[in-house]
This record gives sequence, structure tokens and C-alpha cells, in this order.
Amino acid sequence: MIVVMDKGATPDQIKHMAERVESLGLKSHVIQGTERTVIAAIGEKRAEMKESLASGPGVEDVVPILAPYKVASREVKKEPTQVVVRDLKVGAGMVGVMAGPCSVESEEQIITTARAVKAAGATALRGGAFKPRTSPYSFQGMKEAGLKLLAAAREETGLAIVTEVMSTEDVELVAKYTDVLQVGARNMQNYRLLEAVGQTRTPVLLKRGPSATMEEFLLAAEYILNEGNPNVMLCERGIRTFEAHTRFTLPLASVPYLHHKTHLPVVIDPSHGTGHTYLVPDMAVASVAAGCDGLILEVHPDPERAMSDGYQSLNIPQFEETMKRCRAVATAVGKTLS
Amino acid sequence: MIVVMDKGATPDQIKHMAERVESLGLKSHVIQGTERTVIAAIGEKRAEMKESLASGPGVEDVVPILAPYKVASREVKKEPTQVVVRDLKVGAGMVGVMAGPCSVESEEQIITTARAVKAAGATALRGGAFKPRTSPYSFQGMKEAGLKLLAAAREETGLAIVTEVMSTEDVELVAKYTDVLQVGARNMQNYRLLEAVGQTRTPVLLKRGPSATMEEFLLAAEYILNEGNPNVMLCERGIRTFEAHTRFTLPLASVPYLHHKTHLPVVIDPSHGTGHTYLVPDMAVASVAAGCDGLILEVHPDPERAMSDGYQSLNIPQFEETMKRCRAVATAVGKTLS
Amino acid sequence: MIVVMDKGATPDQIKHMAERVESLGLKSHVIQGTERTVIAAIGEKRAEMKESLASGPGVEDVVPILAPYKVASREVKKEPTQVVVRDLKVGAGMVGVMAGPCSVESEEQIITTARAVKAAGATALRGGAFKPRTSPYSFQGMKEAGLKLLAAAREETGLAIVTEVMSTEDVELVAKYTDVLQVGARNMQNYRLLEAVGQTRTPVLLKRGPSATMEEFLLAAEYILNEGNPNVMLCERGIRTFEAHTRFTLPLASVPYLHHKTHLPVVIDPSHGTGHTYLVPDMAVASVAAGCDGLILEVHPDPERAMSDGYQSLNIPQFEETMKRCRAVATAVGKTLS
Amino acid sequence: MIVVMDKGATPDQIKHMAERVESLGLKSHVIQGTERTVIAAIGEKRAEMKESLASGPGVEDVVPILAPYKVASREVKKEPTQVVVRDLKVGAGMVGVMAGPCSVESEEQIITTARAVKAAGATALRGGAFKPRTSPYSFQGMKEAGLKLLAAAREETGLAIVTEVMSTEDVELVAKYTDVLQVGARNMQNYRLLEAVGQTRTPVLLKRGPSATMEEFLLAAEYILNEGNPNVMLCERGIRTFEAHTRFTLPLASVPYLHHKTHLPVVIDPSHGTGHTYLVPDMAVASVAAGCDGLILEVHPDPERAMSDGYQSLNIPQFEETMKRCRAVATAVGKTLS
Repeated sequence: MIVVMDKGATPDQIKHMAERVESLGLKSHVIQGTERTVIAAIGEKRAEMKESLASGPGVEDVVPILAPYKVASREVKKEPTQVVVRDLKVGAGMVGVMAGPCSVESEEQIITTARAVKAAGATALRGGAFKPRTSPYSFQGMKEAGLKLLAAAREETGLAIVTEVMSTEDVELVAKYTDVLQVGARNMQNYRLLEAVGQTRTPVLLKRGPSATMEEFLLAAEYILNEGNPNVMLCERGIRTFEAHTRFTLPLASVPYLHHKTHLPVVIDPSHGTGHTYLVPDMAVASVAAGCDGLILEVHPDPERAMSDGYQSLNIPQFEETMKRCRAVATAVGKTLS
Repeated sequence: MIVVMDKGATPDQIKHMAERVESLGLKSHVIQGTERTVIAAIGEKRAEMKESLASGPGVEDVVPILAPYKVASREVKKEPTQVVVRDLKVGAGMVGVMAGPCSVESEEQIITTARAVKAAGATALRGGAFKPRTSPYSFQGMKEAGLKLLAAAREETGLAIVTEVMSTEDVELVAKYTDVLQVGARNMQNYRLLEAVGQTRTPVLLKRGPSATMEEFLLAAEYILNEGNPNVMLCERGIRTFEAHTRFTLPLASVPYLHHKTHLPVVIDPSHGTGHTYLVPDMAVASVAAGCDGLILEVHPDPERAMSDGYQSLNIPQFEETMKRCRAVATAVGKTLS
Repeated sequence: MIVVMDKGATPDQIKHMAERVESLGLKSHVIQGTERTVIAAIGEKRAEMKESLASGPGVEDVVPILAPYKVASREVKKEPTQVVVRDLKVGAGMVGVMAGPCSVESEEQIITTARAVKAAGATALRGGAFKPRTSPYSFQGMKEAGLKLLAAAREETGLAIVTEVMSTEDVELVAKYTDVLQVGARNMQNYRLLEAVGQTRTPVLLKRGPSATMEEFLLAAEYILNEGNPNVMLCERGIRTFEAHTRFTLPLASVPYLHHKTHLPVVIDPSHGTGHTYLVPDMAVASVAAGCDGLILEVHPDPERAMSDGYQSLNIPQFEETMKRCRAVATAVGKTLS
Repeated sequence: MIVVMDKGATPDQIKHMAERVESLGLKSHVIQGTERTVIAAIGEKRAEMKESLASGPGVEDVVPILAPYKVASREVKKEPTQVVVRDLKVGAGMVGVMAGPCSVESEEQIITTARAVKAAGATALRGGAFKPRTSPYSFQGMKEAGLKLLAAAREETGLAIVTEVMSTEDVELVAKYTDVLQVGARNMQNYRLLEAVGQTRTPVLLKRGPSATMEEFLLAAEYILNEGNPNVMLCERGIRTFEAHTRFTLPLASVPYLHHKTHLPVVIDPSHGTGHTYLVPDMAVASVAAGCDGLILEVHPDPERAMSDGYQSLNIPQFEETMKRCRAVATAVGKTLS
């Protein structure tokens, strides 16, 4: 950690800050520059130290040198983590594909979709039973009835199930039915929920919040890992920017960046990441080329009649075609799709 | 709602979409432009209709005309809502001031601060007992012990208490001690929590999420109002943008914009909105000039030793000086501060 | 164009606005909704009409239906435009690769690089002679001497030359030496410069400004096309967002989006789009998979000693390896690289 | 400057980088942390050094300590700069008000406006003669005829004239007529233009680009100052963010931030900063409260018929009312308006 002093900082202020650094159990190291003095603080940092030093007299800035996440860090664990549940394999060379409707709507809808996505090569079925909706007047999901339909679809097809959990009080219920607990973008910093899913041993798909920095994203994963659940998949689903021609902006550089910083696998969601059906296939293919470890895609047998997200869902033939293209590119970059 | 057809949409597609509009219980009205056809859909909309129509064949876009929030809308209730609890009055000409430390740390700290901010003119004491922290390794708050200290400070000074609730299972506990339930920015779209605070009758301070649009913000308020709790204060605390010289970007135009759209009072948080002590006073003053109905400010007797947010806290003399300046400007713009 | 009236708009205001629409030479069409009235304005719009109507009495909003660009639009020209100069082919199934240093620094540097990138399969050499630099104290380029070295490198290798022009008064000079005129991101809305390059017949590589919307980007291209120069390549080089772990955020969905809206070819710049050497190869590969028509890449024989942008440049072996991977993916998606 | 080495950097890499630092004429200072090594580089930096070091082997990051602007810096000149031309005084306690139409449209329009804004207390008249327009099909301004009308309005009222210059070849012409040269947001990084206006001695109003960081903004000012023109006013006119309910997001914290970093005066443009007439007055008042040194406001006698920007212009009575409110707040914060 580097404490940068103001140009006009007095010798007393510099001395005071060096002592503050030592009082926190760190070694201080004063470096006199040509225009300004900095104090290097050496030793094991705690999260609040930076904040504390930043408000000291004569301090202009405190620059951290180390990333604040630990268990998630690639510096701690070099080998990539692979998450495996049923036939779904995500990471370490395998690209898992999770496909299905935004919401579970009926038995026919979910079974039809499950069979079709399995036939096309998906290894997991996604589908929402508890739906976080921007408006209180929107369809909120079928809740437990929806979970039961997902379980029936798994029974029928063998696909692993991925579904969202919105609240600590539902974790036990949802975990009873699902293979992967999804934490949605809006809940990425709902720390109680992160702790609750961290206390299960069910794999977690953690979606990036639309304005979360990479550091905040990895610290959210750290909340889960820190509770003892090592099976965390990071899901990039787009960030909020000034761009309005897409629903969110999908920054695929997250894939190589995260692979550089963490051992956790990286899943891409081109459906939310673009928000328009016609953009999804090209971005799915690009995600595989960028090196992602998994894809999560909204697929609906009749998007025009979907109860949510129809405008960003692929229909079955579109999904089949997308899978073919993704598979060709996976081969070209030395990965195995599903 | 206006359904905009592709330039190349066929007569059959236009006919199909007009029928779809009618099948949703709306009246359709086809308008042939010089280059493209649009279909006006007239009648009572439901939230999912737009999504459904947007994925129709030959549809380029669906443009909503009405805002999706209702109870929060100024069109529904013309007079501004004033939230009153103890001496705190927010809205309708009154500017309430909530001041106090980021975290409750000790009895001495909170009582000292409470007395000082009351003496300077604050009518509510803010302080966190349950703290949402980006890192699992940061101080997480004193929890119930902190709530008890807040209650003691109220006993001592008569100030109303504002404190955050992070989870549905804590709502009852926190509501037992506090006068205002704060829903933090990270939880703005934690819908279960919104419903839970909506089921109490305790006033709610709802913070805007750092990437929430105004529509999402008002729909979050709508979740609370829709459960029957009319006492909602909207708090602008800054949004995430490319700017890195401030912690968040504080868009004060939110004040007149929200006053135009909603009857709910608007509170500004210049501490989180800027993230640096030296920027807080000028922005507090500017907030009052922009017409805000309340201020929430971090104040700590010794910011350098604060367990969180010290770098954006005012010390007591800084707060006193800021209050003087805010009061002068409140008078100049025809408002009453505290 | 749809004029949306306020809920409280009076019959007189509605009548007034309908007349205003007609006075602009458009047909008006009043639609009475259940809660609000809208006026459809039908006919040939001019750019200032929207602005004019938006400030009318009782008007809440004016919603345009048509895109404001014309010559660039795919609605006007269905077949994709291919830009061809020497061996460089960009668009219509061909992926052109422009590679070279940020700045021309010396004869040896540029000739070495030109030979190496040609050997690896590039068909154009990029290199800056006039450099727009954020700081007045940074190296500003070799100017005409640099242009001469680029011409020498072309003589030696046959590669097409791509170099930036910063100012109208340099257009003639730069066009004398180069095969492609690059308009940099900072100058995307320097309309005089756009007009000047539009008056040449030299192909133009137009870079997207870091906060330009797609509409602004296409309208900037329209300035060039409108002067009679049809050879415009659009270059996505990343946008400014809150993300700080990359220099810019590279939104690859621009590729399918632009292909949907315009016939102009789309080039991606993963060097500026990420700002870090280690992220460039994966994003180059992903760009090809997303369907781009060209790549522009910073390559330097000794990045550690580059006079600019070393931290985002590939060295020669890294470029060779990247080209191999891009070629494999191009084949997998049915395109031809260089 | 702090060179941060990778956790896995070898002793050879550390030695190599320390030598590189010394080879650039700096003193190196190696600090062994508990997890990682950093090298402090001490001495007079040049702009390209950071870039060069950042691509060295084993380097994770290079953290600059000093701001790269010099002449603009408050560290170099403590006293605030006041720009004075005719009756317009901007800075050092004086709040100058520049008001007028977006575009000069006719003699009657500009003379009427000039008289009215002068009567209400403005000390400068703004008006565009050369207009940068997003679309090539929009009204591009009256050019020299417009400049002559502005000069006539000055003759009539004595107001100082503020008008935009878009291109180096027009600087001489525009400077012949105007008192203040405005460099627009789109040209903030048109370095040739910055140099050209820097070579005049006419005061410059430099608008912040919508995605410019504060450092880029101050470096753009530095280009002008560095040519010898000390009369630079910085104008915050809003940044591009995800917010769509305003045209741009107006970050008023720029005022105290810039006052902290530079001696140059800070002008706010609430018209472009909000993009809606109804938001302008409150934001003008808030700007004064935030401590700005000047306001630039769009005022038109008949906004509904304005040839540009009518939807964000004040009419005359609105401007008069806004001036009254601004004057009251200026007094309350100890400033003098106009």
C-alpha cells in the first residue's frame, strides 16, 4: 500500500502518517520524491486500513498494491477450477452449455424445451421459477410449482438444472430441486444471500452486477468461497453503459481478464448481454472464441408468446444453428463444447 | 404503445401484429408512414405486453408511451408527500438532515456524534449496525448491539434514527429500534426486501442503485408502496460512470427530474455521492439549492480512526460549518432546513 | 415521428401541435389513448423538426421512428460494401489485417515490422506519423518524415499503408503517401475533417469516439459518404465505461449490430479496445468469430522500447501466433483472413 | 512512479526493471513487500516513461504519483485565475453569466435576445455561427454572417461575445469578431485547434468532452496554456453515462474538484448538461451554490421556433426568473453574480 502525501504536506504530517502506518502493525518506508513524499506500508493488510489512512492529515491518496480477494485469486490456486454436475462440465477445457426459457411457464413448455436443447447438445437446462422483475406488476414466476417442473424435466432428460434463488429463506427449498443455484445480477451484492449459498455445497452461478467492477465481482465470489463452497462459476452478462442499442454492453475481455486473475470458470450470457435475439448467435460464437468456459442461453419454443424475455430468446432452430457454429469454433480454439 | 414495423415488413406481418395487439385486449391503429408502418396499441397495458410484441415477426421496436410506475407517479398524486417522524420532516418545503457515522462503533462514539449533530441542527441520526461490505474481510457492523446504542442515542437526544436493513429476516428486529428503515444501494432491486419493508409502516429511505435508471428506481419504490407503506423517501447517492476522481458521480438533476415525475421526497447523500470529505460541503449546499427535501451526511468525531468511510466523513466542525452554509442557501431558495 | 402529449395537455395544445406538424409539411394523425394523446407526424422529416416540436406547449416527448442516416443505411444499399486497396480486402467475406506500430519511430523499426507482419499474413501496415497525444509533453510523431518511411516500407513489401490524419490542412499531404486515411477516435466528430477526407477518394478508416452512440457513429460516416467518398470502414475501438481494468470496454456486439444497420465494413481494434498486450490475442480471435471484416493491431518489434502504446502492442512472435489462431477461427466461421 | 512487479516476478526481472528505471535517468528504489516487490522511480518524469515501463517483463502495473499537467495545476499557481473581458468577469469571487441562443438565426433574433439577457443581468452573449451538428443534414450555422450579427449585438449592448470556433482555418476569422473563443465538447481533443487558439491571446472557453476524464480535460487546457494563452475557462457541460432521462449527466462535483486541482475558473452549462428546459433553472441555481465561476445558458425568445436546441432553451421570462434565483444564492454563498 502506498500512502501518497500532498505536495504541501509538512514534515510533521509525514511523520504522523508513518507512525499511523506502524500503529496498524505494518512497516513504513518513507520515500522522498523530487516533488512529493510517499510512504510504502509493508505487511499483511486488513480491508479497513486503506480507508483509515486515506483520511489522515496531508494525505492525497492511498494506492493499494494487492488485490483484496484471496481464495478466488489465481495467485493462490494456479490450476483452473472445473465445476462438474451431472453431464455439465464447466472449465478446464470444457465449455458447458446451459439453455432454456427465461421463465418456467408450463409442463409442456419446459419439457419440450428440455428435449430440444438436449438434442442440440446442451448439458444443462436453465429456467426461472422465482423471477426478480423490475416491475411489481410483471409475472413473478411459478415458484415451487416451477421447481417441480424443472425436476420433472431433469427426470425426463438427465439435464442438470440451473435456476435462480432470490432470497435466503428460499435457499433450502431451491437447493432441494436444482443442480446449480443461480445468484442474479441484482443480488450480486446481497451478502446474506451469498453467505447462504456459500453454506450449501451446491454449485453456484454468480452473475456480475451491471455496474460491478471486477474487484467487486471477485469479492462477491469470495463471500461464497469463504463460507466453504468452492464450486463457483462467474457469469458475465453485460454491464450498464451509455449504449442503448443493446440492453447491456457485453465486454468479452472479461474472459481473458478473469482467467488471468482467478481460477474460477467464466460463463457468458449473450442473451442478457445483448437483449436482442438477432445479436445472440454471433456473440455466443465470439464468447467461445474468447475462451469462455460456459454459455447460458435463453431458448423458448415460441418466443413471441414467452411470458418474459421473448425478444432476446432463441427459438429451437436458432439454438440448433448456434450450437453448430459454437462447436466449430470451440474445435478451432482447442476446446470441447458440452 | 407504438409497435414500429421493419421497413421490409410484409402486409401479412403487419396484419398479424395488428391482430396480436387486439388479442391482448388492446385496440390497434395502423398508421402507414412514407417509409414504414407503425401500429398504435391503445388501452390498459400490462408489463409483459411490450416484451411479447417486441419478438413478433417484422417488428423492429416497441416504444412505450406511458411510464410503468403508477402509485409513485405525480400523475396519480399531485401534492408532494411529506415524511414526518419525530422532529424529522422531509418534503413539502422542509429539508430534513440525517447525520452520523457510517458505522456505530461504540457508545461514546455514537452519543458524542448524536449530541453534536443535534446541536448543529440535524433532526435525525444515521448510523449502520448491519453493514453491507464489499469485502467479506471488512468490519460487518455491531448488529443488534449497534441498534441498542442507536436507541440509547435517541433516548438521550430525541433524534429520529435512520439505519440500514440488509435482509428480510432482520426487518422485524431493525424496525423495533429504528424510526427509518434504510434500504441500501446494493439492495435496491432485492425485491423480497422491498416487499418486507413495504409490509411495515416504518418510513423507508430507499437508495438508488449505482446503475439503476430512474424508471427502475421508481419501480423499486413502487414495490414498497404497492405493499401499503406510503412513507418512502428516494435517496440519490450517485451513479457509476467512467469518472474515477469521485467515488460515484452525483447527478443533482435527479432532484428536479424526480420532483417532476413523482410526489415522493428526494434526499441527497453527498458523502457517498462524492467519496471525498473535501467535496462534501459544496455538494451538500448545491443539493439544497437544487431543491432537495433532505440530506444524509456521514459525520464522525474522528474520521481518521473511523472503522469505515472515514475518507468521506465530515468531522464535527466541518459539519457545523456545512449546516450554516446549507441553511443560508435554504433560505435563499425558500425552503426550511430542519 | 410520434409527438407524445402530457397527460394534462389541453385540447387547445393538442390542436396547436397538430397544426405545427402540418405547418412543417407533414401529415398529422391524432391518436387518443386511454391516458394520453399522441400525434403521429407522417412524411419526409428534416433533422431540426424533432427539436422544434419537442419544445411545443404540452409536449412530453418526441419519439423518432426513422434512423437519421441515409447513405450509410442498409435499407438503402442491401449488399455489403467491400473496401479494396492493393492486397487489402475488407468486407464481404474477407477479413483484412492491418498491423504495425503505434508510431513510426525509425526506418529500421518500420521496415522490420512491415516485413514481419507481411510474412505473418497482414495485408496492410499501420503506423502513426501525426500522433494525437493526450499530453502536450508526449511524443507527437515524426510527421512528414514518418510518412516517407511508411511509403518506403510499402515500396519494400507491397503492403497497403494506413495512417492517421489529424487536421484538414494535412489531408492533402497525408493522402499523397497513404492508401487509407485514418480518422482517430478523438476526431470522430471533427466535422471539417470528415468533410475534407470525404472530398478525397482515398479509403477512410473511421474510428468510433469513446462515447459516441451508434447513431452518432453512423452520422459521422454519413458526413464522409455525403461528400462523395464511398470507401468508409467503421472501426470499433472500445468505449468509455466505468470499467478500469481495461483501457476501454470493447463491445463486440457492435459487429452484428452494425452489419444489421449498415452496408459498411466493420473493423475491430483490440489493441486500444483492451489496452493490455495479454488481452489482445483472445479479443482478436473473438472479433473474427463475431464476424468482423477487419482487424487493426499494434505490433512492435520491441514493445518495451516503443515510444508509445508499448503496453498494448504485440511483439512479432505474439502477432504470428495470433494470426494463426485468427485464421483457424475465420475458417470455422466461413470467412477468409487476409 | 511506482512499478508494481508480478507476484511471480523473478529476481532477474526485478533487477532488469530497476536498471530500466535508472536508464531513463530516474533513481530506483526497490521495496520488498510481504507478497510482492515494487520499485519506486524518483525524479523528473516524461510522459512516455510510464508507457515504456508498463510493458517490461514481470511488470504488473505502473502507478503514477504525480498529475501530468503542470501549468494548469494549482500546485504551480495558488491564486485563482480571473478571466476578464469587457464587463464579463469569471473567477475569483465573480460569477459571469453568458446567455443567448444556440444558433444565431437573424438580426432580430440576436438583437432581441442580447437586449433581454443584458437587462436581466448577463454580461456576455453566446450564440453559434459555426455549428458542429451530429447530422450533415442539420442546420450548420450562418458562418461569417452570423459573426457579423454577433458583433452588431455587441455594438448595441456592450455585451462580450462568446462563440464557437470549429477549425484551425477559422480561428483568425472568428477571433476578429469575438471576445471569447469557445472550443466545443466534440473538439476538446482536437489538438491542432487547441494549439491554434493557444496562439491567440483571446480568452478561451474550453468545454469538457462527454467522455473526458478530468486529467484529459486539464491536459487539453494545458495544450492551450502551453502555447502562451493564459486565459482559459473550463466548462463542465455534462458527461455521457447510462442515464437517458437527461441528455447528459451533469456532475457538479467537478466544481470543487477542479478548484482543488487547478487555478482556472470553472463555468457550468446546465442547458447541455440536462437537455431539458424544465431542469435548467434548478441546475443553474445549484451550480452557483456549488461554487462555479460562470454560467453559460441557452436563451431564445421563441424556443418553439429555434433552429436548434429549442427543447433545452429558456425563454426570456424563464431566464429572468433564473437570474433572480441565482443572484439570491450567489449572495448566500458569498459570491457576486455578474
